[in-house]
Amino acid sequence: MGRGKTIVEKIISSHCGQDVRAGDIAVVNVDLAMAHDSTASLAIQAFREYGEPHIWDASRLVFVLDHAVPCPNEQASRLHSLMRDFAKEQNVRLFEVGEGVCHQLLVEKGLVVPSEIVLGCDSHTCTYGAMNALSFGIGSTDMSGVMLTGQLWLKVPETLKIVYSGAMGKGVTAKDVMLYTIGRLGFDGADYLAISFTGKTIADMEICDRMTMCNMAIECGAKAGIMECDEKTSAYLTGRTHKSYTPVFDDADAVYHNVMEIDVNAIGPQVACPHAVDNVHPVEDVAGRAVQQVFIGTCTNGRLEDLRAAAAILRKGRVNPNCRLIIGPASRQIFLEAVKEGLVETFLKSGATLIPPGCGPCPGTHLGVPGDGETVLSTANRNFKGRMGNNKASVYLASPVTCAASALKGCITDPREFLEMGDVR
Amino acid sequence: MGRGKTIVEKIISSHCGQDVRAGDIAVVNVDLAMAHDSTASLAIQAFREYGEPHIWDASRLVFVLDHAVPCPNEQASRLHSLMRDFAKEQNVRLFEVGEGVCHQLLVEKGLVVPSEIVLGCDSHTCTYGAMNALSFGIGSTDMSGVMLTGQLWLKVPETLKIVYSGAMGKGVTAKDVMLYTIGRLGFDGADYLAISFTGKTIADMEICDRMTMCNMAIECGAKAGIMECDEKTSAYLTGRTHKSYTPVFDDADAVYHNVMEIDVNAIGPQVACPHAVDNVHPVEDVAGRAVQQVFIGTCTNGRLEDLRAAAAILRKGRVNPNCRLIIGPASRQIFLEAVKEGLVETFLKSGATLIPPGCGPCPGTHLGVPGDGETVLSTANRNFKGRMGNNKASVYLASPVTCAASALKGCITDPREFLEMGDVR
Repeated sequence: MGRGKTIVEKIISSHCGQDVRAGDIAVVNVDLAMAHDSTASLAIQAFREYGEPHIWDASRLVFVLDHAVPCPNEQASRLHSLMRDFAKEQNVRLFEVGEGVCHQLLVEKGLVVPSEIVLGCDSHTCTYGAMNALSFGIGSTDMSGVMLTGQLWLKVPETLKIVYSGAMGKGVTAKDVMLYTIGRLGFDGADYLAISFTGKTIADMEICDRMTMCNMAIECGAKAGIMECDEKTSAYLTGRTHKSYTPVFDDADAVYHNVMEIDVNAIGPQVACPHAVDNVHPVEDVAGRAVQQVFIGTCTNGRLEDLRAAAAILRKGRVNPNCRLIIGPASRQIFLEAVKEGLVETFLKSGATLIPPGCGPCPGTHLGVPGDGETVLSTANRNFKGRMGNNKASVYLASPVTCAASALKGCITDPREFLEMGDVR
Repeated sequence: MGRGKTIVEKIISSHCGQDVRAGDIAVVNVDLAMAHDSTASLAIQAFREYGEPHIWDASRLVFVLDHAVPCPNEQASRLHSLMRDFAKEQNVRLFEVGEGVCHQLLVEKGLVVPSEIVLGCDSHTCTYGAMNALSFGIGSTDMSGVMLTGQLWLKVPETLKIVYSGAMGKGVTAKDVMLYTIGRLGFDGADYLAISFTGKTIADMEICDRMTMCNMAIECGAKAGIMECDEKTSAYLTGRTHKSYTPVFDDADAVYHNVMEIDVNAIGPQVACPHAVDNVHPVEDVAGRAVQQVFIGTCTNGRLEDLRAAAAILRKGRVNPNCRLIIGPASRQIFLEAVKEGLVETFLKSGATLIPPGCGPCPGTHLGVPGDGETVLSTANRNFKGRMGNNKASVYLASPVTCAASALKGCITDPREFLEMGDVR
C-alpha cells in the first residue's frame, strides 16, 4: 500500500507477525489479560470446559476483586472464593478486596506499558490507551479462549483522530472535555473505531486526565482509545514497571477514518443527563436540579488528583443536609496518599462518607444504591437507567469539581461558583 | 419493706411515679427512644395504624441509618427513604449514612445521661448502662406504642451484682473480661436480670471499656447492664451533653438476686467459639486455627481506644496474604480522630480495608459476608450460625488486640506474642 500506519495498526501488526491494516482480520498475541469478580467466574467456567486446561502464561493473567468488595452477600462470596481457588491453583495474581479498581491498579502497578495489547473482561479496559497500549473489553467466554491460547482474533479498527486545542478554563476538567466529545459524537458515533486523542490539550494533560479520557472512549462506541507516549508517560512509568517498552506513534502519512478538531476553550463544565452518556449539556442548563446523592470515585475519576480537586471545594463548606456524599478512592495507594495529604480529613469533616477502593456504587452492586425517585450526580462513566442499582433513580454524570460543588449546595451546581471564592489548593 | 434499692429500682421508681421493687409491674416514662434501618420501618408501619398519630415528643426519638449504609440494594433504599420521609414529617432527628453505629452515636453525642430510661429497637441498647442509665432493647411494635405514648410497661428486674477485682494483664481487655463472664454465666445465666458491673476493675476502666461490657449484657440473657456514675462518667459527659442529671447508686442495703465475684487477674485473652457467644475458651485453646477474615469494629469494639490498640499490633507487620482484615470505626468522629492520629495510615499500610462507620459485617447486611467454609474472627458481640450473612461460615469473637494479632498471622493468635515484641503505643 505504501501509506503510513496508525498506532493501532502498528501494535496489531507487531502482535500478529503480519503487516496488517484497518479492516484486516488478525490473530494477536495478548500481553496481559484481566478479569474481575463480575466477569471472571463465567470465564473460569468456560475455561474448565476445555478439559484439564492450563493458563497459556499465568504471569500474563490478573484477577481483581473490585466489583463487590467487601463482599455484600453470600452469592458474591462464592464468586470470590471461586476466583481465589482458581488463582491459587493456576498461580494467577489476584488483587484482593480493598486493593482498588482493576483499571486503576493495572496502570498504577506498572502492569501496562506502551505498544502492548491488553484485554479485560470489562468495557472500560480501554482506559490503558493512556499508556499508549491497545486495550479493550472482551466477553467472559472470549476470555476463556485467551486464557487457554493467549490469542484473540479481531478486525483491525480504523482510527478516528481527534485533535484537541486550547486550554481548559477554570472549573473545566478532562471529564468535561470527554463528556463534550461524547455529546458531539453520540453513543455510536465512533462504533468500532479507535479514537486517537491528540493535540496540545492532551499533551498538556497529566496521566490521570488522559486515563479519564480513554476510559470513556467506549461510551461513544469506540473499540479503544489511544494516546501517544510522551515524557509524561515515561515519567509515570519510571519506577512502576520492570518491563521495557518501545513507544508507538502514528506515521505522518497514516490513514484515518476521519479527523475531528475540538477547541476546548469553548467548553465549560458539562453534565450528562439521564439516561444516556451522550445526553450532554452545559452545567448551566441543568443547574439547580436537586440531588440526593453525589458519588466521587470510580475508574473514571477516583484518582488522587480528582480527590484533591474535590477537596479544594469541599473545604469551603459542608455537604448539604438533604444530600449524601460518597467518596471512593480508586485504589489503596490513592486512599493512603489522600490520608497523608489531609484530603480524607477534609472529606470526613465536610460530611462525606468514605468507601473502600472498589466499584460498588457505579454499577449498583452496593455501597450507594439510590432510592426510588432520587437524583444522583456521579463522576462515573455511565448513567443508563438502573445503572446504580435502582431503575427508578436518575443518574447525572459530571466532573469531581462539579460533583463536589453540587454536594455542598444539594443541587447541580456550576463549580465556578466555588472556584471564584478564592484560591484552590 | 424498709430495705434499700438497686440503681434499677430507683430509676424505674423515678420514671413511674411509684416506689417499685423487683418483680413489680411499672409503666415508665421514657427519656429517649431509638430505632435504626433494620427496625424503624416496622415501628413506623405499626405507628401509622393508630390513625393520624403524632410522636409523643419528637425531641425524644432518634433514628439512625447504620445497618445497611451506604445503601447496598434497592430494598434497603426504600427503608431509608421511608425513615427520611417520616423523620421530616414528624420532625425526628435522623443520623444519616456514615455518621456511625446507633449505640456509639447516642453516647458520643451526649444524648444519654445518668438516671435516664432509654429504649432502642436493637438488642444491644443495653450499652448505655455504662452511662448509669437503664437501657434495653424492645421490639418494633412495642416501639410504635412508645412513639405514641412515651411510655412502656415492664416488670422491674432483679439485679445480679458482679464484683470485679484485680488488674487486667497485658493483652487482656474489657472484651476478654466480658467474654469470660458470659462463658461463666451461660447464654441464659442472667435471664431478665439487670447486671450491675461493680468493683475496682470497673472503676479503673475507661468509658469505652465500660460500654463494651454493658453492650454484651444481653448475651447472657440480661435485661440490662448497669454501672455507677463516677468521675470518669462525669468527665466524659462534660461538653457532650446539655442535659442536667443526677447519678443513681445502689443503696448499701440493696437487695440483689445474687452477688458474684470475678478476679480478672486470672483471666487471659478469651475467644467465643462457634456458634454461641457463651462457648468461651482461653485463646491458647484455639490458637492456630486459620482465619480467612478478621473484622475489627461494631458497637462492641469500634471505638478509638480499640483502634489504637489494634494499630499498635498492626504496626508490627502486614496482614497475612491468606486473610482479609476489615476495620470499621464506630462513628464519623472516631474515623476522623483515627485519621488524625495516624491509625488509618497504619491500617492502610498493613493491608486492612477501611469501611464506613456502620454495622454492615456484624449482622451480615453487607461489607464482609464470608464465603462458604470460611472462618472469621471478629470483635462483634454475636457469632450465631449465619450471623455474618453465611450460615456455612464460622465466626469466633475476641478483642481488638487478639483480632489484630490474628490478622497478621492468618490464624487465631495470642496477642501477647506481639505485645512482647516491644512497647505498644
